[in-house]
Amino acid sequence: MSQYFLPTMKENPAEAQIVSHRLMLRAGLIRQTSAGIYAWLPLGFRVLKNIERIVREEQDRSGAQEVLMPTIQSADLWRESGRYDAYGAEMLRIKDRHDREMLYGPTNEEVITVLFRDGVKSYRDLPRNLYHIQWKFRDEVRPRFGVMRGREFLMKDNYSFDIDKKGAIHSYNKMFVTYLRTFARMGLKAIPMRADTGPIGGDLSHEFIVLADTGESAVFCHKGLVDKDILSRKIDYDSDLQPIVNEWTSLYAATDDMHDKAAFEEIPEGERLSARGIEVGHIFYFGTQYSAPMKAVVAGPGGEQITVEMGSYGIGVSRLVGGIIEASHDEAGIVWPEAVAPFKVAIVNLKPDDGAVSGACQKLYDGLAAKGIEALHDDRDLRPGAKFADMDLIGIPWQVIVGPKGVSAGKAEVKDRKTGQREEVPFDQVVQRFG
Amino acid sequence: MSQYFLPTMKENPAEAQIVSHRLMLRAGLIRQTSAGIYAWLPLGFRVLKNIERIVREEQDRSGAQEVLMPTIQSADLWRESGRYDAYGAEMLRIKDRHDREMLYGPTNEEVITVLFRDGVKSYRDLPRNLYHIQWKFRDEVRPRFGVMRGREFLMKDNYSFDIDKKGAIHSYNKMFVTYLRTFARMGLKAIPMRADTGPIGGDLSHEFIVLADTGESAVFCHKGLVDKDILSRKIDYDSDLQPIVNEWTSLYAATDDMHDKAAFEEIPEGERLSARGIEVGHIFYFGTQYSAPMKAVVAGPGGEQITVEMGSYGIGVSRLVGGIIEASHDEAGIVWPEAVAPFKVAIVNLKPDDGAVSGACQKLYDGLAAKGIEALHDDRDLRPGAKFADMDLIGIPWQVIVGPKGVSAGKAEVKDRKTGQREEVPFDQVVQRFG
Repeated sequence: MSQYFLPTMKENPAEAQIVSHRLMLRAGLIRQTSAGIYAWLPLGFRVLKNIERIVREEQDRSGAQEVLMPTIQSADLWRESGRYDAYGAEMLRIKDRHDREMLYGPTNEEVITVLFRDGVKSYRDLPRNLYHIQWKFRDEVRPRFGVMRGREFLMKDNYSFDIDKKGAIHSYNKMFVTYLRTFARMGLKAIPMRADTGPIGGDLSHEFIVLADTGESAVFCHKGLVDKDILSRKIDYDSDLQPIVNEWTSLYAATDDMHDKAAFEEIPEGERLSARGIEVGHIFYFGTQYSAPMKAVVAGPGGEQITVEMGSYGIGVSRLVGGIIEASHDEAGIVWPEAVAPFKVAIVNLKPDDGAVSGACQKLYDGLAAKGIEALHDDRDLRPGAKFADMDLIGIPWQVIVGPKGVSAGKAEVKDRKTGQREEVPFDQVVQRFG
Repeated sequence: MSQYFLPTMKENPAEAQIVSHRLMLRAGLIRQTSAGIYAWLPLGFRVLKNIERIVREEQDRSGAQEVLMPTIQSADLWRESGRYDAYGAEMLRIKDRHDREMLYGPTNEEVITVLFRDGVKSYRDLPRNLYHIQWKFRDEVRPRFGVMRGREFLMKDNYSFDIDKKGAIHSYNKMFVTYLRTFARMGLKAIPMRADTGPIGGDLSHEFIVLADTGESAVFCHKGLVDKDILSRKIDYDSDLQPIVNEWTSLYAATDDMHDKAAFEEIPEGERLSARGIEVGHIFYFGTQYSAPMKAVVAGPGGEQITVEMGSYGIGVSRLVGGIIEASHDEAGIVWPEAVAPFKVAIVNLKPDDGAVSGACQKLYDGLAAKGIEALHDDRDLRPGAKFADMDLIGIPWQVIVGPKGVSAGKAEVKDRKTGQREEVPFDQVVQRFG
């Protein structure tokens, strides 16, 4: 840690209005470089990469294929779909040196439709589901809340292409289940809620909402949804997923705009949950809304031209870093779920200038590394109190505290960041405890 | 492969002037979405990720720390360094909705200097070396040669901060050696050549040049440099690296602009190499060129203010995909070095509608997957000739060819893409051959 670029702050930064923004600045995860635009420092970058990895693994598991589309797009493409003039001031419009109209992509329906149209010609090549994880830009009039409503943000977006509506709904259901798994793996309770389709269009859409007291909007749902568990299920993505989707959608859940007070009050009062939530994912089925104007067609079995049915699916990867903190923090700082934590273990060296203490810490560090467990060794020349405060602030799940007394007794103190519980553990058992 | 988004082309695309551009389009690695801007399809994306992974591993090995800076920067930052007006038309200049002047970063000296200045205050926190792998934009007047001279491109850039020149030269040497290792791991012969510092500035600089007949510029060097091997050395990055750097720099090597004909002709004629090359990396030591105007100072041991010494280091990650193809291809297509290949093994199923053949292929595929070996199974309903042509085109290092005759005899044919050598291998020995 003495060699790590991790500038923490004791004071709350004045510009940060919400807890995740405050904690991300204080814990040295990010720094703002322009309004609503952030640089990710090493600790924040590790969290971002962990979230990205989980998103990628679950996309791959579902059979989606990864591509990478550029950030800068041609305005002409958006004229083909009819969205260029409609999109409004949130689109960052650019002229290049030859005065050609370009834009920084806020989403990728147009680009992916062109790639599909040029590359896929036959019904035999369907279905297809292509995803990418790429930076987007939306020129928010008043960017705020740190990475929760920034202008440049990292998003996973994917796009499904099917021969008919039945296939498209299956693709939609695959992503519905994939999203349940993705958020659950991050330690989040994310509840799918029927949503408005907004500027993307279409007639079937769900938002995935993380419950957090500090959430941006009011949400209403049946309490039973909070306790449902997807990770214990065995999922076969080629099987009919409608029963699983029905299980999650048959209970009431709606965001403020879609809320039906009468329907909500039919739920027994003790089962009703009025809460606040943060949107972390959004899925859409929109049929031929883009494929028809952009002529994304394939030849059917009899040679006939079939306009493909599409859906699109987004996860706010950088937004999730803030969302997870909103859902998991306490007075002292961040409490990272293990799956996304920047390090699993922190070694708190209480006396770096004591050779025996530093030797014991180094031995633990090497032992953990040998097992592939990532640890951060706080070898800074600071008072124990300052170290404890920083450790609680940055929220690494396990703290292994090593001081002169412990070294004499052959023991370290292991602290669980979440519960605060402490336990003395003999040095030779520390590593296997995290194995 | 029947389910994989891999649109190959038989004909040479008219717009592609150089071999890597032609092969990248034909092998379905990329598609152009605007002039000089490309989307990466699944096969190309896998190569890009492999290159990125090697770059990252070698950066981490050297002790550099990964961050991620945004693509969109404020013009004000570039006014601080004095480069905003000087940079010229290659900089993509943008106005946001509030008419603030922004730009798409072509490089990141300014942003990193601000992050460093705000986060590091004491000489005790030096040295630091921060890197990121992020998309850049240079608005080339005439983009061409595919990803070799595109407008939006992926670059690894890093920045070192030291207390004095001696430290800065050590940081420079670390990157010199890191680059030798990085390119060698990709199967490339990359030769460091003394270079002009250009718009970055400074007084010490090397380009890393890959030799390829189709290279963009003439280069001149001592033949001995081609045979030098870095990967067999044990490197301790904390030790003095000057002897290794001297070994590589004591032999003559220069690009066209730095060429000294008289010095070159002092080399015995048989040892002279006049060739063509492709720049894949560039390193700079530029002292206080940015830290002085931007006031990146730290407190020294006596409390005095010390302006830090900096260097910057770039690798063209997306450009390398083209560079590797320029250096490694034949008449039939790409010949991927194993370390960057999109898949290590291709299974060529000669009769997908024959249950025994497809069963044998699936068994091989599962056996390879169980060992963590990535394979592409060509189960498409195509003539063998078309499959062989596609396989040679996409250049996967090993082809395992399975047909009805082989299945009867219990054997597959294993073809080495590079040498063209074929060998019959009993089915039960195929997997362990690649383990």
